Order: sequence, then C-alpha cells, then structure tokens
Amino acid sequence: MKDTAGRQMYRLAERLFPICRSITGNGVRETLSIIREELPELTLHEVPSGTPVFDWNIPKEWNIRDGYIENGAGERILDFKNNNLHIMGYSVPVDRYVSREELLQYVYVEETQPDAIPYVTSYYQERYGFCMTKKQRDALPEDTYHIAIDSSLQEGSLTYGELLIQGECEDEILVSTYICHPSMANNELSGPVVAAWLAKWVMNQKERHYSWRFLYLPETIGSITYLSIHLEELKKKVKAGFLLTCVGDNRTYSYIATRKGDTLSDRAAVNVLKSLYPEFNQYSFLHRGSDERQYDAPGVDLPVCVICRSKFGEYPEYHTSLDNMSLISPEGLEGAYRCMVRIGRLLHYYGYYRVNCLCEPQLGKRGLYPTVSKKGSYDDVLVMRDFLAYADGKTDLIEISNIIHASVEELIPVIDTLREYGLISFERG
Amino acid sequence: MKDTAGRQMYRLAERLFPICRSITGNGVRETLSIIREELPELTLHEVPSGTPVFDWNIPKEWNIRDGYIENGAGERILDFKNNNLHIMGYSVPVDRYVSREELLQYVYVEETQPDAIPYVTSYYQERYGFCMTKKQRDALPEDTYHIAIDSSLQEGSLTYGELLIQGECEDEILVSTYICHPSMANNELSGPVVAAWLAKWVMNQKERHYSWRFLYLPETIGSITYLSIHLEELKKKVKAGFLLTCVGDNRTYSYIATRKGDTLSDRAAVNVLKSLYPEFNQYSFLHRGSDERQYDAPGVDLPVCVICRSKFGEYPEYHTSLDNMSLISPEGLEGAYRCMVRIGRLLHYYGYYRVNCLCEPQLGKRGLYPTVSKKGSYDDVLVMRDFLAYADGKTDLIEISNIIHASVEELIPVIDTLREYGLISFERG
Amino acid sequence: MKDTAGRQMYRLAERLFPICRSITGNGVRETLSIIREELPELTLHEVPSGTPVFDWNIPKEWNIRDGYIENGAGERILDFKNNNLHIMGYSVPVDRYVSREELLQYVYVEETQPDAIPYVTSYYQERYGFCMTKKQRDALPEDTYHIAIDSSLQEGSLTYGELLIQGECEDEILVSTYICHPSMANNELSGPVVAAWLAKWVMNQKERHYSWRFLYLPETIGSITYLSIHLEELKKKVKAGFLLTCVGDNRTYSYIATRKGDTLSDRAAVNVLKSLYPEFNQYSFLHRGSDERQYDAPGVDLPVCVICRSKFGEYPEYHTSLDNMSLISPEGLEGAYRCMVRIGRLLHYYGYYRVNCLCEPQLGKRGLYPTVSKKGSYDDVLVMRDFLAYADGKTDLIEISNIIHASVEELIPVIDTLREYGLISFERG
Repeated sequence: MKDTAGRQMYRLAERLFPICRSITGNGVRETLSIIREELPELTLHEVPSGTPVFDWNIPKEWNIRDGYIENGAGERILDFKNNNLHIMGYSVPVDRYVSREELLQYVYVEETQPDAIPYVTSYYQERYGFCMTKKQRDALPEDTYHIAIDSSLQEGSLTYGELLIQGECEDEILVSTYICHPSMANNELSGPVVAAWLAKWVMNQKERHYSWRFLYLPETIGSITYLSIHLEELKKKVKAGFLLTCVGDNRTYSYIATRKGDTLSDRAAVNVLKSLYPEFNQYSFLHRGSDERQYDAPGVDLPVCVICRSKFGEYPEYHTSLDNMSLISPEGLEGAYRCMVRIGRLLHYYGYYRVNCLCEPQLGKRGLYPTVSKKGSYDDVLVMRDFLAYADGKTDLIEISNIIHASVEELIPVIDTLREYGLISFERG
Repeated sequence: MKDTAGRQMYRLAERLFPICRSITGNGVRETLSIIREELPELTLHEVPSGTPVFDWNIPKEWNIRDGYIENGAGERILDFKNNNLHIMGYSVPVDRYVSREELLQYVYVEETQPDAIPYVTSYYQERYGFCMTKKQRDALPEDTYHIAIDSSLQEGSLTYGELLIQGECEDEILVSTYICHPSMANNELSGPVVAAWLAKWVMNQKERHYSWRFLYLPETIGSITYLSIHLEELKKKVKAGFLLTCVGDNRTYSYIATRKGDTLSDRAAVNVLKSLYPEFNQYSFLHRGSDERQYDAPGVDLPVCVICRSKFGEYPEYHTSLDNMSLISPEGLEGAYRCMVRIGRLLHYYGYYRVNCLCEPQLGKRGLYPTVSKKGSYDDVLVMRDFLAYADGKTDLIEISNIIHASVEELIPVIDTLREYGLISFERG
Repeated sequence: MKDTAGRQMYRLAERLFPICRSITGNGVRETLSIIREELPELTLHEVPSGTPVFDWNIPKEWNIRDGYIENGAGERILDFKNNNLHIMGYSVPVDRYVSREELLQYVYVEETQPDAIPYVTSYYQERYGFCMTKKQRDALPEDTYHIAIDSSLQEGSLTYGELLIQGECEDEILVSTYICHPSMANNELSGPVVAAWLAKWVMNQKERHYSWRFLYLPETIGSITYLSIHLEELKKKVKAGFLLTCVGDNRTYSYIATRKGDTLSDRAAVNVLKSLYPEFNQYSFLHRGSDERQYDAPGVDLPVCVICRSKFGEYPEYHTSLDNMSLISPEGLEGAYRCMVRIGRLLHYYGYYRVNCLCEPQLGKRGLYPTVSKKGSYDDVLVMRDFLAYADGKTDLIEISNIIHASVEELIPVIDTLREYGLISFERG
C-alpha cells in the first residue's frame, strides 16, 4: 500500500492527539516541537503573560498535571488521564470534598448529546470545572465527592510557530492554523498537519513567485498577538490568505468568505472548490468563527478566507469527545491538501494573459488545430480557442476561467502550450 | 380603553371627513385650520390664481354651496348635501331642466362597481357633472330633470400648509401629504392625520439631528406650486423624503420607490418595512401616482418615496364613496404612524460606525460576553458581534443591518450599549 | 400577389445558389457582380495571394471547373455539376484510378445524417476530397474508381465587396456578411441578400445620422484581411456592428452577444428582438463561430454582435446539402430584414432625451391628456407619461425603453409627438 500524503498526515495527527493543548502552556510547545520534526524551518516564539495586545492582554500560562473526581468509595469516576476534555480548560487548582449538589455546579455536559464529553474553557475568568457525558452526570448518586485538579496558572508566556518560505517576490500567501485544542482531531489537529504538508509542497516547487507564511497560533489570542506585532508588514505583503481548520473528515468541502467576499483568496478558493467538489458549502462571513474574525476585522482587513471539509459548528461531533481520530481519515486530509495545492498552483499562474496577435492566431499552421474543416471538427480545441478569445490582458485568469467554464486546473496545460508557441504574454498585474 | 395615537388620529379624520375639499377653496382652508388645532406651528400660505408655476398656472378658486338633481315631481334624487362626491369636482354653476337623455351626458358612474359613487374632477376644462351609482343611473326613468349646481369658479388663491421643525442641522427630512380630496377617508384623510401625529412625535424628540419639513398640499398643482417656489432650497437640504397617502386601512403595507430607487429614503423605508411587515408590497416608480411624480421628476430629483398601507389604485374602494370612515381604522393609522416613527429613528441613527480597536474587542472583560466558552455560548450576543464585525466606518448603518439580517430597530440598543462602553465611534458621513 | 422584399430577396438567392463559391476565386467575383446589379455602389477589392494579414497569409486562389468519380463501368457516380458540395473546398487537382479501399480515404460523409452531403474544406493544407451521403458511401461496391478534379490552386487574389453609405456624421454602423459558401442557402446566401436589402433601405432614408458600412467578405480570412487594412479607421468610427448569417429560415430568431456583452449593438439587438420575438434565443460570445471571432477579438474590440434566424450549428441542416433553397423562405428573409430595419430605426433615434420643464408638463392643455379625471382615465397615455418621467437627459433611450417596458418601436411615435410640441430635447451623447 502506497504511503500517501494522507496517511503520513494521519500518522502525525495520531501522535499529536493525546497531548493536552490550550492557548498557553507546555502542550503547545510539545506539539510545535513534534511538528518541527516535519518542518525544521518552523521557528518558535514566546510572548510574556501580561503583554498588551490591542484590546487584550496575554493571559497567565496554564499547565495541568492531573485532575479527577473520586466518589465516597475512593474510586476515580472521572480522570483527566483518560480524556483531557474532562477538565475545563484553564481550570484553577482545587482539592475539595463536595456534596453531589455542589459538584453539579462544576459539572458541564452537552444536554443534546448524552454520550459526548463537551469541550469547555474559561480562559479569562478563574474557575474550575469538570466535563462529562450527560449519561454519567444523570447517574451520579448522592455521595461525597473528592474533586481535585493539579494545575497551575501563573506568569509565563504564549507560544506560537511561524515559517516563512521565501519566493521570488515579497508578496505573500498566508496560511494560518491553530494549535490550542486538546484531544480533538478534526478541530483541531487536521489544520496543523495539512498546513505542514502544504508547506512541504511549497518548499518543493522549483518556481515560486509568492512567498508563503505559515502560522501555528493559539486561536483568537494568538492571532491577535501575532497581528499586534506584524500587522503593518502583513498589510503590505499578504495578497491572499487561508485559514485551515476542520480539514480532516471526508464528508464535504466548505469555504467561508472573507468579510469583503470577493478578494483574490475568495476567488481562488471558489474557483478551485467548484471544480474539485461542485456541491461544496459556501458560507458568508456571517458564519465566521475562528481566526478569520481577527484577520478580516475592520482596520486589519487581511484577505483571509477559511477552508474546511465539514465546517466547525456544522457537524455533530464538533467540540466534543466524538471529534476523535475515527472522525478524520487519510482520505479526508489528503482531499484538503490537494485542494490547497490546487489553490497554490492557481495563484502561481494567476494574472493577466494577452494574445500576441490581432484577430485569431492561425493555430492550424502550428499543428494545434484540425486542417480539415467540417461540422464539429473544432470541438476538441474549444478550451484553447475560448481561452484565446478572452485573453485580452484585462480579464484575469480566474475571470476567464469562470466565463469559459473551464477550471484553472484545466487551463494550466493550455497556458503552458500557448506560452511555448509564443502566442500569449503574461503579466502578473 | 387607552386613548392611543390611532384613536386620536381616527377622531380627527372623522371630524374632517364631511368637508368638501378640492385643489382650491374654503374646504382646504377649513381643513388646515382644524389640523392647526393639533399643530399650531403649521403655517398657511395662499398663492393667487393665475400665478405661473413651471409649465402650469394656478387655476381659479372653486367653491360650492349646493348641487342636486330633482325629478319631474320636484324630488331631490341626488343631493350634494348627502355626499359631496355627487358633484364632479370643479363643476361650474348650472341651473337647467333637461331630458333623461341629456342628463346622461353629465352623469358619471363606475361601471364595474354598481353601488359606488365615483370620484370625478375636471380641474382644467370648465364643465359640470353629477356622479352617482351605476344602479341609480340605470334606474333613471324618462323624465324632465332639474339639474342645479350653486358653485363659483373665480380669481382667488391656492392654499397650502407648511411646518418646519428645526433640528441640529439644516439637512432635512421632507414629509408630504395632500388635502384636496372631498369625503374619502383612506385617500385622503389618512395622510394628513398621520403626518400630524408624526410631526408631534418629531417635536417631542429630545435629540433631533435633522430638521423636518411637513407639507399639506393640494395634489399635483400644490406640489408643483411649492416646488416652483422652494426648489433650490429643497435640493440643498432634503436628505430623505416621504409621501404619506392611503395610510389608514389595516390590510397591508406598501412602498413606491423613488425614480432612482436606491436613495436613503428608499433604503430606510425598505429596511423598516422588511422588519415591520416582511410581506409588504414593493412597487417601482412605474407605479407612481401622487406627488412623487413631481418630487422625483427629472431636474427636480428629490429623493421622495411613498408609504402606503393599501396602495392607491390597488384597493377596490379607491376613488369612490366606498373609501369611507369604515375603511380606515385606529389600528390602520397607528401602524402607519409607527412605521414612520421607526423610519425617523433609523434616520437619526443613520451614518457610519467604526469599532475603536483593531481585532475584536474583548467583550468578556466588560460583562458583555459569556466567560465560559462552550458550544452555543455566544448565540445570544450574535447581533452585537456581527455589528462589530462590520463596523468598519465605511459600511453604513442600513447596509450593516441588511448584511447581518438585523433590523436597525434591533441594532439601536446594541449601538447605545457599544457607544456607552466607548467601543465604537460614529460619523454621520 | 404583392412583390414583397422577402420575395425579391428570395429570387436573388435563387439566382446565386448554383455558383461554387469559396474563400477565393471566380465564384466570389460572379456572386458580387450579381449583387452589384442590386447595389451598384458596391465596390470590389482584390488582395494578392501571399499578402501577410496579421498572423495569416492570403492563400492561393482556387478555381474549379469539374470533379467526379467514375466507377469501373465509366459511369459518373458523383459529379460536381450535380452539387458543388461533392468536392471538398480547395481540393487540388487529381486524376487517378484507385481501389475502393483507397477511395474511402478521400471520402467525407456526415455519419449522423445518412442522406446529407456534408460541406468540407481544407483551405490551409493541400489535399483533395469527395463528399457524399453516408448512404452512397456505404453502398460503394469493390471496384476500380476514376477520381478526377479539374481545379487550380495558384497565385491570384482574395476578393471582397464594400459599400459605404455616408450619413450626417462619420460614426458608423457596420454590417458584415460572407460570400464564401458554395451551394447552401441559409448559410450562406441569406446574409448577403438581407444585407443588400438593408443597404437599399438605408439609402432610402431621408435623414441618416450614421454612416453605414456593408462588407461582403470570405469568412475568417476575409475579415482578418479587411481588419488588417482598416482596423484603425474602424476603431475610430464603428459605434455598432452586426454580422448577418443564417437569416433565411422562418423558425426562430437568435442573437450572439459581443465579447463584452453590453455594447450598443447588444443593447439595440436585444431591445428589438425582445419586442419582435420575445422567445428569441440569446447566446453568449462563447457560442460565437463566424467573423465576430475576429471583430471582437482582443485588441480588435469592435462591437459586433450576430443576428440569425436559426443559429449556425444549431439546426440540423447546417453545413450540409440539406441547407438548400427549401430551407429558407421569403417570410424568413423578410423577418430578418424587418428586424434589421427596426435596429436601424432604433439607432437613428438613439440618445438622451430630456423633458424641457421642471415637474410634469401639463399635457391636458395640449390635448395630449384627458381633461376629466377618473379611475383609469390615464391608462391610454401611460407610455407617454412613463417616457417623460424618465427623460432626464441621463438615461439613454434603450434604458428608458427597458425600464418602462415599452419597445423603442412603440416609443418612436411618442418621441415624435413630444418633439413636435417642444416638450423634450434630444442629445445624441
């Protein structure tokens, strides 16, 4: 069995799955150091707690060693070691004996999914909490419970990873993903692993017009932090941007538009998705939810759209223990990877093509066209003829592709042929 | 039972109903003087007969005291005193005995509505006429009839009312209605009474950015006259304008677009009507019929759209004796009044909002946001989040409202809160 | 029976039908000299073989005298004299005896139409060929066949016709048609004959704002040749252009948009076709196929759209012997002619109209409007009122026509009346 990119990505996700990540802490560092085994060029950065970042401040660093609930008989009925979702993210330490009634004040369940442990956090208000299935909670007997969390919340730093792959010019394509979720697979180990393989693909390209910037951030506070440091640079350089999240299941493809809705990122994503999976789900920015909230915020205005397989919030396993390694697959990851590669190819070819002569060129004398003219004899060369008919140096590649109903992927070999024969010129514009 | 604005408006309409109004004459003066009891600030203006107004001239002033048809037995079979619609508007005096055959030349009926007396006028060609039900006409026996109209048509003046309520700036909102129809209720006493209550609401506002101009005109010749005097001033000042007509029945809501179709008036009206009564009838300017014909005429170009309940020409009682006090209701008038108040509020808040920080503000630390993050925990604050996501200082209030599918009425408390916390700035633009 | 334009055009087509035309040669000259009997002003032009024209060169001139296949018994089983489609266009001379097997290498049939002789050419690669019905080919017995073509392919020239009808200004309307098809009727004798009658109509107009340029060209190489000589002049002068092809059958109407899709040509054509035949077929430039490929090519950018009855490629008889005189009819030709006349009238009236007064003009005092006002009394003057309401000097005639749902053909008498009364001004803009 061939070792596909999909299988390789899946294996990396398997290795990262057990780690307890949050928006700060050693889980993030361990995750990034494993990803660096694939991408040694990835650099790690630390920003101290308390640093002001726009309207926010870097929070204290959170680390956790253990957490559990014991019943009166001293049996662990809930254990962080079994599933790190059991402890609410950023829980402060506790070691108390409580009645069932009091315990319930600290227990979180997903009422509509009786078998799922929900993913719950409280980053900016100090509290503690335990997450369990609704079934388990409903069956808790009257008892005295020992609740214990061995965690720390103290001055430290926020950690993120960054990789810049230099192209022929300073203009950049931004790829952002997040590494702050504990043991969930689609949301979110799929994004980091697909981003890693995409970065490898970029590095393997012989010609690379654009530079590419890959960011591994904790969600929300991470992108706000990064933007507070790099905003002016990004505003100058970023020509297109993509947030990769929930890219591991194999059920569908989804896309969330930028706030403006018609940037190069949007147009590239829609063009590729239409040809790859015509029934893909197209969401407006109203359905945003991840770091595109920051990248596309007023005044930030970076053209970042979101690529998903099943969109966050739209699949039942979302933000629960059901979002595990069985939800994602090598095929799911590979599909997202191939989509991003197509987008990368499209952007490399993106620009303005102009036919080099007035009126139609004589394709026949170049062997590009049948020399006998009869009904239907030109059907095979229709894409080339249509491309030439619209290659006016003013209609960009994506617009031509949309007008003539031929995906950029189909047009690339036609463009290569026409450039080889000197029939068209190219300006990136 | 609470004395609502609707009931108060209905009572005023009842009082005005019997008066015989036309485009000139004492009926107009009496009507305006009764309205002045509610709006003492309303000023009355007279323009002499013969005054040239653009392509027109102010016609002679028409007044009528009596009018009837007697049969051979001396019985009044038709009497102005029973219903002033019986005499064609602007009928010249007559006192003659005529055969049935000749009488029929002067009789107007509505062929498709056997029980309705039609509303008929002949302002610009001197003639006389009698209006009756089709049933009555069809039953007229051979006889000698005495036809008599005691009217006068002579040099005088055209009367209109005007009320300017000063705001913080010279920019104006124009409200126009007409007072030239005899005893019909929806078309047209509803407009004058709703305009009066709207003017009271405007005067009661503590903060009032815009000035408001209320016009009580005879239809067509009145607006042409007013425009011939005030056009340059209006072109400078009027930012939005609304013609109120047929605003008294409780069957539906309707709107006729300005000629341009996308002025602030249109956008405000559509935004409010969509939230107030989503199934409202939207008409293009092709369906115009009242003074918007003048306000929106080429070269005049004032942004005046029309607000109706059932639109003129579209309800069966229109321009007949069936358009009486039973057709309109306190609820009908109140609905139109509330619609206009919402439009007034929208215009007061109209402009450009900009979030004061880069990236999303941290709502949680201000108590505007849940501190526990779990699936669905932000649904309640969605409108505020969406408003902030689009508050870029370039997208105006109405456009934001349309994009995020939240009416301006819903956004007003959100805006108040965000301004209170200093999170957004406002520019009227 | 009245001798209509349709019948006259049909008779001319009948006369031209038997001539063997191609992209060069005496068939073209004979065709043009017969058309000159109708249009003596038509001038003929010759461009020598070998002349470079953009990416092409004028090919050698082709003439043919005879061509046939004889069977072993010396019987002509296929004869150019019966149908000139039997010989592939531009066939080089041959005089050989061949087996059935070899013969089949030179035989072309239309596999899907067993009774049709297909129309086949090989302009730019020297070869010879015979076209027959699929039925005939399938029935060819083993035999020795004598194949003979008495043709010549040598230095000569390409011939085209041109007619410029001077108008009041240098701005031009271009009409292009082609005269390179052998014995086929709809495609293509219909275009040349309709163009001739349209030219006569243009010459008969008393007032003629635009100049008109009529071109009779061989397809593709002819338009490329003409453009290589006249491009700069045409780019300066041509305001609208129409390619006439397949305008003789009476089944439907069709239109192919220019590449830009919204030029004056497109707007005029669509406006006229919508009123003439609302269910007409509207094709985008993707469905181009004739000389519009050159006129609308990038850098050429002339606003030339295509008018057809049944569009080329879309009717079953296309490019076969079934496209004969029974396919077209006087009614078919007449319909296309009337369509073009309407387009000519529209263009003559095209421009910006402005009402001469502010507010509505008083139509009643000019007898253009009923003096009694009652429900429905203005319905008859609706088109005039609507035209005036939009005649703002900024909305062009076609746009007004589209907005008010009245064809330009309906508006022309209204415009004439309003200009007569001095109520509107006109600027061509």
